[in-house]
Amino acid sequence: MMAQKKLIGITIGDPAGIGPEIILKSLSYFTEKYTPLLIGKLSIFQQYNCLLKTGISFYSSDHLLANLTEAGIPVLEVLPDESMHIIPGTPSIDSARVAMHALRTGADLALGKKIDALVTAPIYKKGMQDAGFAFQTHTDFLAHHTKSPDCAMMLVGKGLKVVLVTVHIPFRDICAHITSETVYKTIRTTSRSLEQMGIPQPRIAVCGLNPHAGEEGMLGTEEKTILQPAIDKARRQNMHITGIFPPDTIFWQTLQGKADVVIALYHDQGLIAIKTIAFDTGVNVTIGLPFLRTSPDHGTAFTIAGKNTANISSMVHAIDFAITHAHHCVIPNE
Amino acid sequence: MMAQKKLIGITIGDPAGIGPEIILKSLSYFTEKYTPLLIGKLSIFQQYNCLLKTGISFYSSDHLLANLTEAGIPVLEVLPDESMHIIPGTPSIDSARVAMHALRTGADLALGKKIDALVTAPIYKKGMQDAGFAFQTHTDFLAHHTKSPDCAMMLVGKGLKVVLVTVHIPFRDICAHITSETVYKTIRTTSRSLEQMGIPQPRIAVCGLNPHAGEEGMLGTEEKTILQPAIDKARRQNMHITGIFPPDTIFWQTLQGKADVVIALYHDQGLIAIKTIAFDTGVNVTIGLPFLRTSPDHGTAFTIAGKNTANISSMVHAIDFAITHAHHCVIPNE
Repeated sequence: MMAQKKLIGITIGDPAGIGPEIILKSLSYFTEKYTPLLIGKLSIFQQYNCLLKTGISFYSSDHLLANLTEAGIPVLEVLPDESMHIIPGTPSIDSARVAMHALRTGADLALGKKIDALVTAPIYKKGMQDAGFAFQTHTDFLAHHTKSPDCAMMLVGKGLKVVLVTVHIPFRDICAHITSETVYKTIRTTSRSLEQMGIPQPRIAVCGLNPHAGEEGMLGTEEKTILQPAIDKARRQNMHITGIFPPDTIFWQTLQGKADVVIALYHDQGLIAIKTIAFDTGVNVTIGLPFLRTSPDHGTAFTIAGKNTANISSMVHAIDFAITHAHHCVIPNE
Repeated sequence: MMAQKKLIGITIGDPAGIGPEIILKSLSYFTEKYTPLLIGKLSIFQQYNCLLKTGISFYSSDHLLANLTEAGIPVLEVLPDESMHIIPGTPSIDSARVAMHALRTGADLALGKKIDALVTAPIYKKGMQDAGFAFQTHTDFLAHHTKSPDCAMMLVGKGLKVVLVTVHIPFRDICAHITSETVYKTIRTTSRSLEQMGIPQPRIAVCGLNPHAGEEGMLGTEEKTILQPAIDKARRQNMHITGIFPPDTIFWQTLQGKADVVIALYHDQGLIAIKTIAFDTGVNVTIGLPFLRTSPDHGTAFTIAGKNTANISSMVHAIDFAITHAHHCVIPNE
């Protein structure tokens, strides 16, 4: 009887970026703990395999994943009837189409519980949109495709977990997007997701919006008028909210064990903390989907694509998080 | 001939808080490098000296500082005609008055070049105002008293220096306070101050306001309309601005040596970075004054006053920064 391993789908991202490189170089980690299923095009992985001299052997997997016990790394082919030429560093409609189809295929596999978790390499937003993709980000697509309107972005780095209430909006529009309802929903998604990840009744700390969390109303009132009602509602449903804290001190305190996760109200409130302490090792986790999805927290880095210089730390941590927190299942056909 | 030491004035802060404790316990550091001049009331320092068993011997210094060569720690007395009873943990009008007079005396000594730098222990804003103090903070008072309208707050921790364009204002009012003029003036004050501290033509990085520094205008335009004109003006005057950077990545990059200092546009943009990496050791420096002023970056902590549990790290670093960066002078009467 074979040992049971988790099966993690890994999408290629935009193949003109560093996605293929960070995937191939990450495959030497955790080999005893999981089976990777690469989702993209075998020819492109082979191209980078030669370029980077990674010496990996691949085989084509079928969509039923009925043949995952062969030696080597299985690749699930997208756009199987097309051959295409990818130039590292030069995104194209073709590279965007590969990224798009890989993402859709990965999402469908995860939805169908064919894989235990999905790890996504970086995509190129503008290229995808030129190729007809109607979404801004991975998360937007996954929320729509899986009908998960309350999903949220969690960043994880050096033991710190941060979930964002708002993400990519201009600074001056932030206030308008922070409502008791959006804060409450983010708390709820966070609480449920961390429970699923094995943290019973997670302790959730909420960042204030204003300096010193408003200092008793002298520096702003949103803590009382917006955040407190959201927290009161969450507490009535037995979620464990440790309180509203000054944004500058809560991350350090959480690192000291005062909470399991921090709710940040806007992009930089959360990302400054994560990126300052875990620049290379941060992981992006989408919570609130029907499956676990992680990704490195960097972009396609076209300028260094194919040059064998990409830092794989974030990708390695993204795979590690997926392995650690995905629900366990048996590889089909075992 | 005696060795020349810098003379650093240290104000008592609100004596019902942890100010006296963190001062007394810091006096065992750097003794070879400077002469401390405590500014407050000898009786209160004696009270804490007994309470905390620090075993320090003091002597009263006169206002001419003509007698600083005695053995022990000199204390410059404020409100010399009054005796007062301080209860640790219980702020009062009297404790606020001591804080207020110590601050004014320290500022005057520094203005008169009687001391090389000023280190201030924490004050209690509300108590000071009840006692007739017309300012919100140390910095507000010092800016007014020394006629230095362009002074700014710099935070220093774990090798990271951050200067704030705006400080204690509600989040929703931040945008209105960030203008090309305020950003330019902060850059100018920063450049001059770091030169005075011994960093020739300091490399200054400016935080964007929006996520990803606006991402080419897709996530906000203030980088182009407000920050860039300020930077252009500073560059025309030969200041070294390294650029506008995404707020989440610039602090880590600066820690890697990409700049000497970061200009942050609002309180938490700068303080989240500093406090997350240097919670206990951060130092607050007022730049743009006629003298150097530093302080620990925490408050009076009344709840633990007199209990011998206060963390002195930030105070020790504040004194160290003052010693390192104050202009050297000879102790009077040597």
